[in-house]
Amino acid sequence: MAKKAAPKKTAKRRKPSGKRKIDTGAKIERLARSVAEEAFAKRDPHVDIPIRALSNVSFNEKTRYIEMGDKTQCRNFFNYGQAKRFMQTLLVASKCKDLVDQDKTASIRQIYYLAKHTIKGTNEKTFDDQSDSDPVLEDLEVAVEALREELHIFAAGRGALMGELTFVDSGDTIDATRLGSGGYAIPGIVEPEVIQFNKCKAKFVLHVEKDTVWRRFVEDRFWEQHKCILTHGGGQPPRGVRRLLHRLHNELRLPVYVLLDNDPWGYYIYSVIRQGSINLAFESSRMAIPDARYIGVSAFDYERFGLTDDVKIDLDANDVKRSKQILGYPWFQGKRLWKREIKKLLANGFKMEVEAMCSKSLSFVTEEYVPHKLKHQKEWLD
Amino acid sequence: MAKKAAPKKTAKRRKPSGKRKIDTGAKIERLARSVAEEAFAKRDPHVDIPIRALSNVSFNEKTRYIEMGDKTQCRNFFNYGQAKRFMQTLLVASKCKDLVDQDKTASIRQIYYLAKHTIKGTNEKTFDDQSDSDPVLEDLEVAVEALREELHIFAAGRGALMGELTFVDSGDTIDATRLGSGGYAIPGIVEPEVIQFNKCKAKFVLHVEKDTVWRRFVEDRFWEQHKCILTHGGGQPPRGVRRLLHRLHNELRLPVYVLLDNDPWGYYIYSVIRQGSINLAFESSRMAIPDARYIGVSAFDYERFGLTDDVKIDLDANDVKRSKQILGYPWFQGKRLWKREIKKLLANGFKMEVEAMCSKSLSFVTEEYVPHKLKHQKEWLD
Repeated sequence: MAKKAAPKKTAKRRKPSGKRKIDTGAKIERLARSVAEEAFAKRDPHVDIPIRALSNVSFNEKTRYIEMGDKTQCRNFFNYGQAKRFMQTLLVASKCKDLVDQDKTASIRQIYYLAKHTIKGTNEKTFDDQSDSDPVLEDLEVAVEALREELHIFAAGRGALMGELTFVDSGDTIDATRLGSGGYAIPGIVEPEVIQFNKCKAKFVLHVEKDTVWRRFVEDRFWEQHKCILTHGGGQPPRGVRRLLHRLHNELRLPVYVLLDNDPWGYYIYSVIRQGSINLAFESSRMAIPDARYIGVSAFDYERFGLTDDVKIDLDANDVKRSKQILGYPWFQGKRLWKREIKKLLANGFKMEVEAMCSKSLSFVTEEYVPHKLKHQKEWLD
Repeated sequence: MAKKAAPKKTAKRRKPSGKRKIDTGAKIERLARSVAEEAFAKRDPHVDIPIRALSNVSFNEKTRYIEMGDKTQCRNFFNYGQAKRFMQTLLVASKCKDLVDQDKTASIRQIYYLAKHTIKGTNEKTFDDQSDSDPVLEDLEVAVEALREELHIFAAGRGALMGELTFVDSGDTIDATRLGSGGYAIPGIVEPEVIQFNKCKAKFVLHVEKDTVWRRFVEDRFWEQHKCILTHGGGQPPRGVRRLLHRLHNELRLPVYVLLDNDPWGYYIYSVIRQGSINLAFESSRMAIPDARYIGVSAFDYERFGLTDDVKIDLDANDVKRSKQILGYPWFQGKRLWKREIKKLLANGFKMEVEAMCSKSLSFVTEEYVPHKLKHQKEWLD
């Protein structure tokens, strides 16, 4: 029954192509050189850090994603309040340069431990806690204009992929139609040096919120029937998943359809996939997918699909508050359908999970709900 | 550079072998038949449910895992306090029977929605909340002596695998040495009907706690150098991961080595992998791995490896409390090394994460720490 295993690859792990590596390394070097030059010239060394705060973030109507403005803040060495942060910035930069040079990657926790030490002749630690090093890492990302992944740093992975795509990951060719019931665990770093797309027969990507919903689609072989790629992000999708969706959309020209729970959290996840987040506004252009489409679950689906009250979960005070906040987001302004949607949720007084579709029948979601949605674009939210 | 994709499989998804399917279905039928016979005989229908509580759980010195005793509780239909739970038990059983017959699986959330409805002629719901259906499902597992997975129910998946193993998952042959940087996402159900082991060149399994640590080992191609299988469980390993480790250990005779943070949580995770948990005592024999070995991190490693205080994280009151609880577990009695270990942790006053090994160097853990541990069995805890 079992097919013979494909021949084991003989090639060693494929090294990232040199190009971008030089870029990121060179960017860090440029930063270091400017600091060193100032020091040798007996000037106060400094680093300019673009400001990562709501005050320096706006929604660009043209690109349709959240962008960072150009306000920066100067971080000086000879400034009592800034000296430590200045030191930390250069220290993290130097550790990232090591990673790039060694062609290794580290988690944000690992970079904290890599950079933590006692400053010679003192009892002072360079970092007391990871909450010290995380923002410094973000400073560095914006200062040298490199994605975290390009600095060879990854966040914890979550999410999986299955479907009509063949790709190369670190030299291994992976046919995502042949991954059994488990699927491909999406790593934290999915940059082109690591992952190259090979053959794609998919017509679209269906991204669902949760692992358990994804398994429903996998078990029903939805990807085969509808020629698509199935992904999930284990809730709010981590950077690796968002970046992979972005690449699938932009490089392979695949529409991205999103299926999330009908609650403020679902709306928020969609908002982040679509126009990026305030925190990570500086990477919107490489993460946000303004053309991603929310195909469900909509507050109107309760009546559309004749669902019973078995699917209802009462909104709590926090749900109501969050819904109103989202209604106020600049990027939902002028979105007639979204306003209607959120108002309908509030009027319903209940939320609905994708899994609640089971109350019709186990495979209702794969056999009727999503096929219906794919045919009726008028029901999508954008 | 990229190798040609393996030929696409032509066979349709492999159906589970009929054997066990009939078993589980038959078990549920047997339960239903006995209830029906009582009803037709005008007796009070009942179901005997083994008791899942500390009072009916003990550590078996011989098998070396936590076992459920044989106390049962009778659930009657003509009993005001039990009638609803009786109805729920049969309802969930009937839904599981449908799943088995249809050869489909459902999440515990999906089974809740599948079984929830309004009882005809009343305003009463069969279930008000998933917290109603989860324990009923566990009742059913013990009542019909079937693993949850055999009832075709899965919990959310977490965890990944990479290394010297080729296996078949739902008819797809997967070579776990060729999964790039991402790896195989371990599904919730890994029973022999779904996953069959094929070729194994591994000499052992190394199970680590977290995704980020696992990626360190994957990136350093530890599995290739040491001929092993690498797994992680995203913290406390979910059932799919535990069951897969159990199968790798028992069917392929692979030793299982566990690398966890040096804190009470790490000890607890090991304890569950090794002798099972109180909650799931009825499935210890198919989940617990009494021969799994804790290779690190040990409280003694601070001195053994000349670590600096950069790796220290102060124990808090809860850590101290948990450590003392664990010290009192029956299965740690008579374990001289474990007592010494936990006392050392308390004496240290600090805990250490696997990732803290980075403070030596990024790959210290893969190049020195674990290789050292593999050579020095005296340092293991068992």
